[in-house]
Amino acid sequence: MSSEGAKEDCLGWAARDPSGLLSPYKFSRRTVGSDDVSIRITHCGVCYADVAWTRNMSGTSKYPLVPGHEIVGIVKQVGSSVQRFKVGDHVGVGTYVNSCRECEYCNDGLEVHCEKMVLTFDRIDTDGTVTKGGYSSHIVVHERYCFRIPENYPMDLAAPLLCAGITVYTPMIRHKMNQPGKSLGVIGLGGLGHMAVKFGKAFGLKVTVFSTSISKKEEALSLLGADHFVISSDVEQMKAIAKSLDFIIDTAAGNHPFDPYMSVLKTGGILALVGSSEVKFSPASLNHHMRTVSGSLTGGTKDTQEMIDLCAAQKIYPNIEVIPIDYANEALERLIKRDVKYRFVIDIENSLK
Amino acid sequence: MSSEGAKEDCLGWAARDPSGLLSPYKFSRRTVGSDDVSIRITHCGVCYADVAWTRNMSGTSKYPLVPGHEIVGIVKQVGSSVQRFKVGDHVGVGTYVNSCRECEYCNDGLEVHCEKMVLTFDRIDTDGTVTKGGYSSHIVVHERYCFRIPENYPMDLAAPLLCAGITVYTPMIRHKMNQPGKSLGVIGLGGLGHMAVKFGKAFGLKVTVFSTSISKKEEALSLLGADHFVISSDVEQMKAIAKSLDFIIDTAAGNHPFDPYMSVLKTGGILALVGSSEVKFSPASLNHHMRTVSGSLTGGTKDTQEMIDLCAAQKIYPNIEVIPIDYANEALERLIKRDVKYRFVIDIENSLK
Repeated sequence: MSSEGAKEDCLGWAARDPSGLLSPYKFSRRTVGSDDVSIRITHCGVCYADVAWTRNMSGTSKYPLVPGHEIVGIVKQVGSSVQRFKVGDHVGVGTYVNSCRECEYCNDGLEVHCEKMVLTFDRIDTDGTVTKGGYSSHIVVHERYCFRIPENYPMDLAAPLLCAGITVYTPMIRHKMNQPGKSLGVIGLGGLGHMAVKFGKAFGLKVTVFSTSISKKEEALSLLGADHFVISSDVEQMKAIAKSLDFIIDTAAGNHPFDPYMSVLKTGGILALVGSSEVKFSPASLNHHMRTVSGSLTGGTKDTQEMIDLCAAQKIYPNIEVIPIDYANEALERLIKRDVKYRFVIDIENSLK
Repeated sequence: MSSEGAKEDCLGWAARDPSGLLSPYKFSRRTVGSDDVSIRITHCGVCYADVAWTRNMSGTSKYPLVPGHEIVGIVKQVGSSVQRFKVGDHVGVGTYVNSCRECEYCNDGLEVHCEKMVLTFDRIDTDGTVTKGGYSSHIVVHERYCFRIPENYPMDLAAPLLCAGITVYTPMIRHKMNQPGKSLGVIGLGGLGHMAVKFGKAFGLKVTVFSTSISKKEEALSLLGADHFVISSDVEQMKAIAKSLDFIIDTAAGNHPFDPYMSVLKTGGILALVGSSEVKFSPASLNHHMRTVSGSLTGGTKDTQEMIDLCAAQKIYPNIEVIPIDYANEALERLIKRDVKYRFVIDIENSLK
């Protein structure tokens, strides 16, 4: 087991209070344990969780708070027992950095459901320290929670896979939405939704994008390659596709009615909820056509590595806007206004000094 | 093809207006077609649908309306092409009496989901007549929608299987709730709920009954054989079983909160909705533990026959209160007050004259 141990060796950007305003902050990471990988961070994606936690929306934030859980970088040091990684490897870290490693979920590669799962930032780790995220120069993580990024996959593009990508990929695999020829509806065209469209097309599905705004039509069809575009508030358009979809993936952040979407699902159709809309619908929406609503929240390590490898093999790339760390506060403001196509990625390597 | 054809050969009890009050009514059934079975009805179960339709709760009732879709009787005549039944056989008819017989659902024995499915009463059949249910002396039905009742199964006890039984059996099979050792929660202890408890025990499940009333405890545990009883409005009792159940089957008729029930489902747990409560819950209830809510509405012919055969093989019997047809109006009133343990069955054979 090697050691770094220098105090305040890590430079990050942290929120200091519920204003959420980020500013430079020096802190220390733990020394590299025998199973740990130390990663020089090159990129970090900007997720809505970064907004919610820096502003204490769930009431549990501990300041200073360093957000960021779409982390990509280069291995700079490995512990003595590390098997899967060596110095120089490209790696990613997602939304969690620890778990019990012995429960049924951990044993099945579903660590995200472990009772002792530790989120990548603002959680108390097993050593008593508060986890700090990827808006920082480096991170030390048990190798179990690191993912291999293939050399041919651009590192900036890899960042959104670690949360946005796996969050939509997981329910798509679980509910067998990867069967060519089936039909998929996507609600919400943000960081998650645009990845759902891309996975859908990669799986050979017929993809319909739902939006309340006609302004999204061109980008949905031309830029992202969706097959159909439907204004979800238009009763006639919705009626025209009644009972036509096998699946819907709902990535919408705001509250919206569910019954209209349920009505376009086939008998036995499934709506996978990964957004945060309160769920409310009439029993007939479910009963009369044995429809299903199912929730999901990111994914386990097994699925995450599989998804990254799939993206590399099939050249599935998120659409991103690369920004310097100095732009982080403005990026969070724009994210709140949904003014991003489709994910901000912070160029940590070249801007965090 | 033989023929009956006499006018007004069938004696039934019908509602004449939205008061729902039932009284004797003479009408004609169709002549027996080549694929038809004519059944002398011996028993008919009393379902809440009989209340809803006789009182025009959905606004579509056509009077005079003869309710009843848990029909059991003895074959008295068969058409020339009938393969599966002969005169004297014990048979049942459930909630539907026709479908297109060529769509994907019909081909899979899931006729209940056919677009052209015709309900057993108050629907326009393909010959233009309005279907009339089992509160009557006989019925003529295409053999496809008839089920064999094994000779050793009491005919009065068979009636509730045709709607209450199949309505809970279908989602239990679909969602693999028949795996011994798994845990099942049952919401609502009426006609459907008490059958869910019985199927649960027959499948080797650990069954927990939820109720808002302690008065149901003794019957749930002693009479129906449930393993546990929980007062669902008791926060401490619910907390004590947090994340402990694999499945819940929700048969409740009235609106109730969903989040407390979701919280007692394990990660990946499934709530199957067969009741009519408006569905409303927080996204976290689904997302955080990849839980699922799924709807269901009776079942297809394949599952129905399987269920009847299982009940006969394993001696699974509904608890019923046999009543004469003269008691039908009072039975419907008592059903509204949930004052029945657990299903009324009308003794058509001995009381409808």
